[in-house]
Amino acid sequence: MVVSETKIQVLYADTDQMGYVYYGNFAKYYEHARTELLKKLGFSYKELESRGYGMPLLSLNINYRKPAYYDDTLTIKAILREKPTRKITFDYETYNQAGQLLNTATTELILTRLDNRKPTLPPYWYNEIFSKHFEK
Amino acid sequence: MVVSETKIQVLYADTDQMGYVYYGNFAKYYEHARTELLKKLGFSYKELESRGYGMPLLSLNINYRKPAYYDDTLTIKAILREKPTRKITFDYETYNQAGQLLNTATTELILTRLDNRKPTLPPYWYNEIFSKHFEK
Amino acid sequence: MVVSETKIQVLYADTDQMGYVYYGNFAKYYEHARTELLKKLGFSYKELESRGYGMPLLSLNINYRKPAYYDDTLTIKAILREKPTRKITFDYETYNQAGQLLNTATTELILTRLDNRKPTLPPYWYNEIFSKHFEK
Amino acid sequence: MVVSETKIQVLYADTDQMGYVYYGNFAKYYEHARTELLKKLGFSYKELESRGYGMPLLSLNINYRKPAYYDDTLTIKAILREKPTRKITFDYETYNQAGQLLNTATTELILTRLDNRKPTLPPYWYNEIFSKHFEK
Repeated sequence: MVVSETKIQVLYADTDQMGYVYYGNFAKYYEHARTELLKKLGFSYKELESRGYGMPLLSLNINYRKPAYYDDTLTIKAILREKPTRKITFDYETYNQAGQLLNTATTELILTRLDNRKPTLPPYWYNEIFSKHFEK
Repeated sequence: MVVSETKIQVLYADTDQMGYVYYGNFAKYYEHARTELLKKLGFSYKELESRGYGMPLLSLNINYRKPAYYDDTLTIKAILREKPTRKITFDYETYNQAGQLLNTATTELILTRLDNRKPTLPPYWYNEIFSKHFEK
Repeated sequence: MVVSETKIQVLYADTDQMGYVYYGNFAKYYEHARTELLKKLGFSYKELESRGYGMPLLSLNINYRKPAYYDDTLTIKAILREKPTRKITFDYETYNQAGQLLNTATTELILTRLDNRKPTLPPYWYNEIFSKHFEK
Repeated sequence: MVVSETKIQVLYADTDQMGYVYYGNFAKYYEHARTELLKKLGFSYKELESRGYGMPLLSLNINYRKPAYYDDTLTIKAILREKPTRKITFDYETYNQAGQLLNTATTELILTRLDNRKPTLPPYWYNEIFSKHFEK
C-alpha cells in the first residue's frame, strides 16, 4: 500500500452559493492527490503521455459526509492499495484542518494507448515502477 | 418515474489535453439535467433556497464508458425513479449526437435547512409537488 | 458587423460563496458566445482544428458592472465588428433576464498553426467565409 | 509596493484540447495569488467577509504571451503597487519553471458591504493593515 497526502487551499473559485466547495470540484482535488502519489513513486503522468499512453477514468465514486468551506486547508489522502495492472484504483480521504473526515472516494483508471484510445497491457517500465513498491 | 432530457454543447473549456471532457465536468452537466427535471415538475431549486432549504450531495457515482469530445452535442437524461423523501436520488445517462451511451451516473441529495445545515423532514409543499407525479 | 446572442442558464457550479457568478467563469460564457457567432457564419472551430489551425487568446478584458446570480438566464451578445485577419477581435455584452447590462468584454484571438504553435496567415477558405459578411 | 509569489502546479483539469491551460483558468490562479499576498500582510479575506464586507471584481485584464502546459510549475507574482482605498488594484505576472513570462494581468476590486452589495468606505482596521506597508 502506498499513501500520500496533498494540501489544498480552498479558493473562492471552488465554492458555491451555499458556501460549500461545489461537489464536482473534488474531482480535480483527487487528480492533484493521485498525481502527487504517482510522483512520489517516481511515476510522471506527463512522461506517461509522452510515451504514448493515457489513463482515462473508468469510474468515480464519492461519499460526502461534511462540506468543505472557503479557505479551508484540506488534506487529500490518496491510497494505492494494490499494484496497478492496466487498471489502477485509487482511494481518497479528504480531511479539513480540524482533522474531520469530509468525504471518501474511489477512482478507477485504465491504461490506454493515445493513438487508438484503446486499453492496453502495461509496458515493462510501468510494471517495474510499481513492482518496487508492491513486491518484496 | 419522471424523465427529462437536457442538451449540452461541449465547450473548449470543458475539454482536457487528451481531447476528452474532463471527468469532473460531468458533475455540472448532471446538475443542469436534474435542475431541468425539477423545473419540469414545477419545482424551482432557487425557490427552495429562498424558503430556507438546500440540497447538498450525499454521493456521486459515475461509470465512464466512452469519452465526450469538443463540440459534441450531449443529451443528459435525468431520471427520478422514486418519489423523493428528504433523500432524493437521480440517475443520469449521457448520450452523444450519434446516440452512443457515454456514461451513467447516480447522485443522492439530502434536503437540509440552510440555517443549521442539518437534514430535515420535507415541508408540505415539497411533498405535494412530487405526489402529483408519483401517486395516483 | 456580425452579432449573435447566446442564452446561458446560470448553474450552481458557476456561483461562488458571495452568490455571484465567479468572475473567471465568464470566460467560458464568452467562448460559448463566439463559437455560436462563428457557427452562424458557417465557420466551425472544430473544423478549423481538423485543418491544423488553432485560435489561442491574445487578450481578455472584462468590465464588471453588476453581478449575475444563480438561475439567471443570461444573454451573451457577441459582436464581430471587423473582418478577421489573422487576428480576430470579439466584443461581448452580458445581459440578465431583466435586460440589465451586467458586463462588457473584449477578447483578441490569433490564428495559429497547431504543429508549430506559431501565428500564421489565414488560408483562402478562412478569408472567404468572412468576406461574405464584411465586404460588398 | 508589496509583492508575493504563489506556486501553482498545472493539473489536467485546467488544460484544454490544445494542450494549453484554458484562458479563463488564470482567473483562479490570480485569486490564489492575491489571497496569498493579502495573508502575507495579515489580511484575511475570510475575516473580511465575517465582518460583513466583500470584494467583487470591477475589471480583469489579461495579456497572454505564451501558453502554460500540463504539469508546469507556475509562479504567479502578485503586486500591490498602491495603498488600497475602497478600490484595490493587483497586477500579476505568470512565469513557468523556465522563468519565461507567460502572461500579465490586472484586476480591480471594490470594497462592498455584503448586506446591501454596495461599495463602501473602508473601515478603520482595513486602513490600518495597509498603512503599515505603504506609509512611513
